[in-house]
Amino acid sequence: MLHERFPSKLLENAVEQFARLPGIGRKTALRLVLHLLRCEQGEVEEFGNAIIQLKREIKHCKVCHNISDTEICSICANPVRDHNFICVVENIRDVMAIENTHQYNGLYHVLGGIISPMDGVGPNNLEIDSLIERVKTGDIVEVILALSTTMEGDTTNFYIYKKLKNIDVKLTTIARGVSVGGEIEYTDEITLGRSIVNRLNYFDTIK
Amino acid sequence: MLHERFPSKLLENAVEQFARLPGIGRKTALRLVLHLLRCEQGEVEEFGNAIIQLKREIKHCKVCHNISDTEICSICANPVRDHNFICVVENIRDVMAIENTHQYNGLYHVLGGIISPMDGVGPNNLEIDSLIERVKTGDIVEVILALSTTMEGDTTNFYIYKKLKNIDVKLTTIARGVSVGGEIEYTDEITLGRSIVNRLNYFDTIK
Repeated sequence: MLHERFPSKLLENAVEQFARLPGIGRKTALRLVLHLLRCEQGEVEEFGNAIIQLKREIKHCKVCHNISDTEICSICANPVRDHNFICVVENIRDVMAIENTHQYNGLYHVLGGIISPMDGVGPNNLEIDSLIERVKTGDIVEVILALSTTMEGDTTNFYIYKKLKNIDVKLTTIARGVSVGGEIEYTDEITLGRSIVNRLNYFDTIK
Repeated sequence: MLHERFPSKLLENAVEQFARLPGIGRKTALRLVLHLLRCEQGEVEEFGNAIIQLKREIKHCKVCHNISDTEICSICANPVRDHNFICVVENIRDVMAIENTHQYNGLYHVLGGIISPMDGVGPNNLEIDSLIERVKTGDIVEVILALSTTMEGDTTNFYIYKKLKNIDVKLTTIARGVSVGGEIEYTDEITLGRSIVNRLNYFDTIK
């Protein structure tokens, strides 16, 4: 496919643009572009403009750094939410995942990544200082760490812990354990081990 | 995912546009859009504009109906190619596939689909009349049918045959048989049957 001869430069250009997206090869890119060619002119312009407009006009919330259409995002601006709680996440997809559970009513803080020396991401590339500032200046009661259970996630958790340990705030992390509906037999041993060590009082779980 | 709460209307709009593409679900769409958000402004504009420009400026060759940047495509306009041969294909992807073999030096005729009553595609929705016109008026020696080996492909072949049978032109179809490198044992019986019925003189194949 590398030496594919395109009958049109315009077509080749559009295919190359699509093929730059993650997980989209040149065959898929060609299929998508040919689909767009069969669509109405208006639909295609809408598609192209939606992407250009997104990049031009999108904002990041000044408080939590989540993606937003306004200076302060709808979560941070919502007076009904509990402004004493901050849940620390890696990216906006994690915010959406937690929001979908309908189990959390506090605020968020989007780091924009996790500490990963291999990828050249250090604490200064992330929104950690702004988190510490928020905790210092705001009425924050609890900071909930909700990062991936990877070495990078653990490193980031520990870095934040060190920065916060002299501040009077509760620091928690989301529970790790056997997933709901998961069978003991098929759970990996590290998760199973953790779920035994961090076992819960049964009466608390059925309240 | 249907009731996903997006933190931004712009984001939601862009995700919905991507999710309309074939084979792209909402999760993949979100991943692609978040990737674009991490790209440079210029790159994203280039992406959006490539698609809009493609749809606005692309032409279809007046002769063979292949996609083209000019009135007459680069294949039809090429004096080195053999203008006595027309290879009839369903779409532009087939042109590209045959071109990649470097085994054909004639012209093409892109039907824009095949006859498929189930999908509401009849002969009048396709570039069949223009093919007959080309054969009648041009110096065409041979028309090569290169459509899919499906019921729709066979129907279209037969329809073209009926239209061309009173015109003095050779009508051929590309060979069906066991694929090169294919094992007899794993070849489906219809293909294997056809390859026995349409067997070739061995001496012709080693010449």
